Amino acid sequence: MKISIKLSLSIILAFHCIFLGSFFSGNAQESPERPPNFIIIFADDLGYGDLSVFGNPTIHTPHLDQMAFEGQKWTNFYVGASVCTPSRAALLTGRLPVRSGMAGNKYRVLFPDSKNGLPGSEITLAEQLKKAGYATACIGKWHLGHKEQYLPTNNGFDYYFGIPYSNDMDRVADYPQGGYWNQQNEDIKTEHFNVPLMRGTEIIERPANQNTITKRYTEETISYIKENKNKPFFVYLAHNLPHIPLFASQEAMGKSKRGLYGDVVEEIDDGVGKILKALELKGLTENTIVVFTSDNGPWLPFKTNGGSAGLLKAGKGTTWEGGMREPTIFWGPGYIKPGLVPDLGSTMDLFTTFSKMAGVEIPKDRIMDGVDLSETLLYKNPSPRKSVLYYRGTDLYAARLGDYKAHFITQGAYGQFGERTEHATPLLFNLNHDAAEQFNIAEGNDAIIQQINTVVREHQTKLVRGKDQLAERE
Amino acid sequence: MKISIKLSLSIILAFHCIFLGSFFSGNAQESPERPPNFIIIFADDLGYGDLSVFGNPTIHTPHLDQMAFEGQKWTNFYVGASVCTPSRAALLTGRLPVRSGMAGNKYRVLFPDSKNGLPGSEITLAEQLKKAGYATACIGKWHLGHKEQYLPTNNGFDYYFGIPYSNDMDRVADYPQGGYWNQQNEDIKTEHFNVPLMRGTEIIERPANQNTITKRYTEETISYIKENKNKPFFVYLAHNLPHIPLFASQEAMGKSKRGLYGDVVEEIDDGVGKILKALELKGLTENTIVVFTSDNGPWLPFKTNGGSAGLLKAGKGTTWEGGMREPTIFWGPGYIKPGLVPDLGSTMDLFTTFSKMAGVEIPKDRIMDGVDLSETLLYKNPSPRKSVLYYRGTDLYAARLGDYKAHFITQGAYGQFGERTEHATPLLFNLNHDAAEQFNIAEGNDAIIQQINTVVREHQTKLVRGKDQLAERE
Repeated sequence: MKISIKLSLSIILAFHCIFLGSFFSGNAQESPERPPNFIIIFADDLGYGDLSVFGNPTIHTPHLDQMAFEGQKWTNFYVGASVCTPSRAALLTGRLPVRSGMAGNKYRVLFPDSKNGLPGSEITLAEQLKKAGYATACIGKWHLGHKEQYLPTNNGFDYYFGIPYSNDMDRVADYPQGGYWNQQNEDIKTEHFNVPLMRGTEIIERPANQNTITKRYTEETISYIKENKNKPFFVYLAHNLPHIPLFASQEAMGKSKRGLYGDVVEEIDDGVGKILKALELKGLTENTIVVFTSDNGPWLPFKTNGGSAGLLKAGKGTTWEGGMREPTIFWGPGYIKPGLVPDLGSTMDLFTTFSKMAGVEIPKDRIMDGVDLSETLLYKNPSPRKSVLYYRGTDLYAARLGDYKAHFITQGAYGQFGERTEHATPLLFNLNHDAAEQFNIAEGNDAIIQQINTVVREHQTKLVRGKDQLAERE
Repeated sequence: MKISIKLSLSIILAFHCIFLGSFFSGNAQESPERPPNFIIIFADDLGYGDLSVFGNPTIHTPHLDQMAFEGQKWTNFYVGASVCTPSRAALLTGRLPVRSGMAGNKYRVLFPDSKNGLPGSEITLAEQLKKAGYATACIGKWHLGHKEQYLPTNNGFDYYFGIPYSNDMDRVADYPQGGYWNQQNEDIKTEHFNVPLMRGTEIIERPANQNTITKRYTEETISYIKENKNKPFFVYLAHNLPHIPLFASQEAMGKSKRGLYGDVVEEIDDGVGKILKALELKGLTENTIVVFTSDNGPWLPFKTNGGSAGLLKAGKGTTWEGGMREPTIFWGPGYIKPGLVPDLGSTMDLFTTFSKMAGVEIPKDRIMDGVDLSETLLYKNPSPRKSVLYYRGTDLYAARLGDYKAHFITQGAYGQFGERTEHATPLLFNLNHDAAEQFNIAEGNDAIIQQINTVVREHQTKLVRGKDQLAERE
């Protein structure tokens, strides 16, 4: 019985390999087959150590664990920045936010009174996939501009349902004393944050009822899948949680051993399970790829209301590993070859990889920062990504080349604040041997530092900085 | 096809549940069925964060990951002490080492010139299982006394093959400068440690060739399984590694992205895979329970040659979580109900649980520290263990009751050395919310501290301390 299961899986894989060949020719028209559906599930401020399959002892995420076991668990997967707005810009454009202007040193993210957003000249992954006839939906947090021209429906998405920025914004005057820094759930109400909930470009609820927001994002995703099952689709499901303040539905509250933070993460995991179930019921399991990751590391100053980066150092806002390495899972039984992948990857690679799989050309008029991971996803071939650049705002703080990371500048340690230190000799860590960045091995390793410097110089020589879109507020 | 697999598994489980009922009557004679085989795989100084399924990014342990996925992954599982000798005594006797005298403050472990070992009055798990007709083997590190009367074959084991103490003992004079504290593998040879390899009570090789020791322990285990497949068996496979100094076979060397430490752990995992394969080939999968855990946390002063406790604080030698909480997996498709188990458990519970499953009475003439975990293993019922006592030598440093741990004394932080501090008000942590022991919540939680104090007082009132067996050296 086992043999026949394996055989049928081999046939499916072989079939996909054959027809994927035509995708890689870069022309969707050549392929008579339907390209895969893509679902990106993007958590907010979830730490590297916050899923059970990434080592959390008391947050129980059985559906994500199952995805990791059936698919690929990536353990060296990065985001383009360690805070919301630039990280999201990086994922959707496949480019470092310093190029699009979606990174700034005056303000690091957009606010409800920010004037600007993602420039129209940027091409989003949704715009790419539209070229191949995909139905496209953004469900959840946007944070790339709340004014009409910047909203998802003007950036390649057919459909939008969500809160256009962070869930801790638009704070109202009767905000409880002590604030969410020491959140006791009974003190914090969804009404203390007057954030809007939008459908398309219309505000449909204000303040958004955040208690039910995770559940509703899941439901909207499932509805969209059902309605669009007959064409290829792309859903970008960007949860507003577990960003502080924390909210969970009545059903989820008190279920986790990890307290409210765990309840919130487990409700997201529960939603993941429901989405996979919906795919199965609609016969879409074999031709859908689901990616799960987070926009940046955990927000550590919030103590147990924030997450954990596991063994990694520091968290959100920093260029230590805890800020920018995320718990990442690729799942898709029809495509993904299962296993642990300790190779380098980045959210910026999703643009390139999914464009290629859908048979859409990569833009040639601009520098792209993504690489095509499809050979790694399908065959477990080595990842073509060899380096990672760690920006804080518009400054390059660190760079990784292969096993090694050099910190040119460090700032803060366990929070995102703290003194900025420039290192005449960079701090050097072997991240594969010392993921926790504990043992500086710069001494005697000049050659490695030189190699990293060469990568950085090549990058900086070609870099054209976009105009800072975050600087202006009303 | 899936349905029929599930059905047959249900039938097997139902069958086991029915016949296990008779085991629990406490009389092996009553049960006509063969009780389960038990294999305990005990790693040496492996940290909580050193398996991929416990969050390690670059140590790849696919067989242990698979076991965790098919079986139970225990995330709050403890040892009886944070160094070798007392931890091993706790596992094999089901009792705190302070009772047996296998803990000391002058010396914390046994040495090659130690005079004593595990007192004959102690009952080992092997002696228990012999009462139910088990074939019993100890393969690997013993460390409960190297003189003849203390060896495994005089403590309930039919067979012994292994190094009788730690692999860094019996150091020879031409030991390389710098020692293993900065181990470069080419500098460290197996000949630098004149440790004996024994079969039964005879030394068969000295120095033991440690390069092949992990592989040979696996091979011995497989041979023993094959030879004893027709009766119930108990194998206690206690690897000497990844204790420092690190050694791996030619085949394993250089395979891991984590360096030599990773090679060593991956060779253990490879052996686990081979043992599971051997069980399958002999038709023993359904009636064998395999447990994997470690004797204590990682030896942190050795930097990247030591392991990682993941998100947990500190390591070997300490009473912080990193010293005493271990990455633990129970596997056995015929018995173990799969899933994550965040409940409390201890290596001392193995004595009680396996005795019960084999239908052997628990000794009534002494205080036992283990509880019966079988209802949790079989049905995922809540663990009956509610508390954990953290001893350093013969002093109680900390105690956990439910979610909460109180530190009465702390010593050192990231190594096992450092200043001893007694706390008038204990440090208090909620370990389910704050596994990393970062946020002391003693203030305002007197009631919780009182509850823990009550548990400690009850324990101390009944405590009879065994004579220190580690104090005398020749």
